[in-house]
Amino acid sequence: MREAAATTTGLDRLTPVFDRISAIGARPGEGVTRLAASAEDGAARAIFAEWMTQGGARMEQDAIGNQFACFDWAGETAPWIFAGSHLDTQPRGGRFDGTFGVLAAGCGALALLSDIRGGGFKPASNLAVVNWTNEEGARYQPSLTGSGVFSGALPLVQALALRDGAGIELKAALAAIGISGATQNLPPRPHAYVELHVEQGRILAEAGCRIGVVEGTWAARKITATWIGRAAHTGPTPMADRRDALLAAAQGIAGFEAVTAQTYPHLHRSAARLVVEPNSPNVVVERATVWFELRGLDTAELDRAGQAVLALFAKAATDTGTRLEIAADMLRVPAEMDAGLMALVGETARSAGFEPLTMRSVAGHDAVALQNGGIASTLIFVPSVDGIAHHPDEFTHPEALQAGLTVLEGVLRRLVAGPAGGGQKA
Amino acid sequence: MREAAATTTGLDRLTPVFDRISAIGARPGEGVTRLAASAEDGAARAIFAEWMTQGGARMEQDAIGNQFACFDWAGETAPWIFAGSHLDTQPRGGRFDGTFGVLAAGCGALALLSDIRGGGFKPASNLAVVNWTNEEGARYQPSLTGSGVFSGALPLVQALALRDGAGIELKAALAAIGISGATQNLPPRPHAYVELHVEQGRILAEAGCRIGVVEGTWAARKITATWIGRAAHTGPTPMADRRDALLAAAQGIAGFEAVTAQTYPHLHRSAARLVVEPNSPNVVVERATVWFELRGLDTAELDRAGQAVLALFAKAATDTGTRLEIAADMLRVPAEMDAGLMALVGETARSAGFEPLTMRSVAGHDAVALQNGGIASTLIFVPSVDGIAHHPDEFTHPEALQAGLTVLEGVLRRLVAGPAGGGQKA
Repeated sequence: MREAAATTTGLDRLTPVFDRISAIGARPGEGVTRLAASAEDGAARAIFAEWMTQGGARMEQDAIGNQFACFDWAGETAPWIFAGSHLDTQPRGGRFDGTFGVLAAGCGALALLSDIRGGGFKPASNLAVVNWTNEEGARYQPSLTGSGVFSGALPLVQALALRDGAGIELKAALAAIGISGATQNLPPRPHAYVELHVEQGRILAEAGCRIGVVEGTWAARKITATWIGRAAHTGPTPMADRRDALLAAAQGIAGFEAVTAQTYPHLHRSAARLVVEPNSPNVVVERATVWFELRGLDTAELDRAGQAVLALFAKAATDTGTRLEIAADMLRVPAEMDAGLMALVGETARSAGFEPLTMRSVAGHDAVALQNGGIASTLIFVPSVDGIAHHPDEFTHPEALQAGLTVLEGVLRRLVAGPAGGGQKA
Repeated sequence: MREAAATTTGLDRLTPVFDRISAIGARPGEGVTRLAASAEDGAARAIFAEWMTQGGARMEQDAIGNQFACFDWAGETAPWIFAGSHLDTQPRGGRFDGTFGVLAAGCGALALLSDIRGGGFKPASNLAVVNWTNEEGARYQPSLTGSGVFSGALPLVQALALRDGAGIELKAALAAIGISGATQNLPPRPHAYVELHVEQGRILAEAGCRIGVVEGTWAARKITATWIGRAAHTGPTPMADRRDALLAAAQGIAGFEAVTAQTYPHLHRSAARLVVEPNSPNVVVERATVWFELRGLDTAELDRAGQAVLALFAKAATDTGTRLEIAADMLRVPAEMDAGLMALVGETARSAGFEPLTMRSVAGHDAVALQNGGIASTLIFVPSVDGIAHHPDEFTHPEALQAGLTVLEGVLRRLVAGPAGGGQKA
């Protein structure tokens, strides 16, 4: 019956703080712009910390700015459970992506704490609610920065040295919002990590399900290509003398789509960021950098497709008299999520009356970075209307939010109750 | 013999102030970045004003920020002669482009003033040395903003409302460097305008000439196209659902070059500025705006070529499910420079020992805007090594600078001596 009680109070707990954070970086009709380590991110972090502190948590943060709201329920030697997501957004993003997962984890923690204080629940683990830095990768690339550093995939010094489009180092941006160095009493690597997220696709809606259990993800190959030409006047400079980096990039982008659509039509593919220098109407472009992505299940296929597009990029350089530099060429392998935790989520969902759908995620998430870093992790999805993501129209119905809150709280209850992951059932 | 004396002192006058202004916005290996109405532009304007004031000029400025160093030599009812160019640069531009013309005009004015004070020269006109605002069009489009407003082609309110890439209005940018509104005693429309500029091409060097007299310019068609798609997650969003504005822009840029190179190979063509929103690696691009240029002598041909590329842009929109908006489509007609002034420049050059080359300019210049606005104008070129322009390597040899200074001073001497344009010879 405790889960039923949580069902009635979950949205009540969530709504006030969710509304407060949703207002940070919001503009009418333009969604929410809360880029990692921006002033808006700092303001959202402060609200989260205040809310968790008032709820009884001890706030800690590591050197990359990951926030941990720590509930020391079971003593120093007890294992830790983490739950969370991220508070940063895309430019003109939605308000659910990431933020819902962080605050849902906070609601779960507060519900458990209430039961602990009431004597109805005895924890065997400590719990931390986590906000991971720069999940989106909008301002700093690569994405999944905070969870990548925590799980060991990305060296801290490398992450702190990342630069945004204006040349500002992540270290300096974090310092500007008051984050410099780690606090003294960080929680250790957790026994398990749980993340609740909106789906960013239409699979759940089309299946008529409110709860998805992610079994794994697609792989992604991310290639950053720079073409280097030579600045010159766009007027008098003879055409034969020009080395136009934007023309090369345009041929690269158009060719990338043409080749992959023809040979690998089931791969998801994009070129979504482009930086042009000097970007003046009267100066032939000297440097153009494009961020390309290919996503699919089969890494061998991504390898073949990647070789084909690299050859095409080189041809664009030759044809335009420019020089090609591949600044990054990264393969994110497909993750296989923890089977025991998947079973636990499924069982919890069913006990709450939701038949879960086992599914794959195309997108990466912090849970994927942690799972690939050796931390048993699980990723729970709730449906997003029309699958809209990274757009102001992103929306999830309150009934679906509540379903997610209920299942997440139930999973945390089971995990915190016992280090084996199953444990005491409420 | 007075011209011979000027020959020996022109570079001496020029060098100290040229070096001071060249340092504003300069970075090693990156040339000079002194965008219109930036802090750097403000600093360069202050040096120019100080130099001219110390030389005896009265400084005035109009509402668009054009600076006039006024020498009231011939009384309130006498006609005015203007000479000048611009102090703004492209990003990572050269130090000669524009700045040399302004300072050369200042040197000419100071040489005449010296002779007036010595009693050897009697002026019949007043003279203003002018710095036109935002000639380059790098930060604000269209280019030739200050001269366009002065000559009547561009309404002042429209010019002040231009926005840069960060959304800052030109009016606000000017106010930030202390320019708001016109001063009280502006000079009237001049009898003639003279501009000295580096060539930005190789015609003079290949002909072995130090002085070019511009008879006219090419026409230019400038089209600003925006493709509007829809932001979405680059991962899970099904390919069939995507409306990718950057893909459309890339097809537009690549197609623009392919079509014009095949059908109109002698036109100069470029796409040199591109603005992408939201420009995050994980968001399908919602808006992409590209600045295209076509330049040639024949406006009918530019009309046909323009229609062909507009059709191609529309097809790129259809093929990508995006919507095309043409934000600007402007034809700059070919200018024919003032024949009387050309003859005067030619005669002056020959009397100084330089055989002038009559030539066309592909690029626009402030002199072209004024000539098209009904002000008799002349444009004098000196050679630029290898024709390099809008690049840190831009360079003109001191001997060529001196040739330009000598001819410009001689032309000003003749113009100021008599309103008929020929007049008293020193």
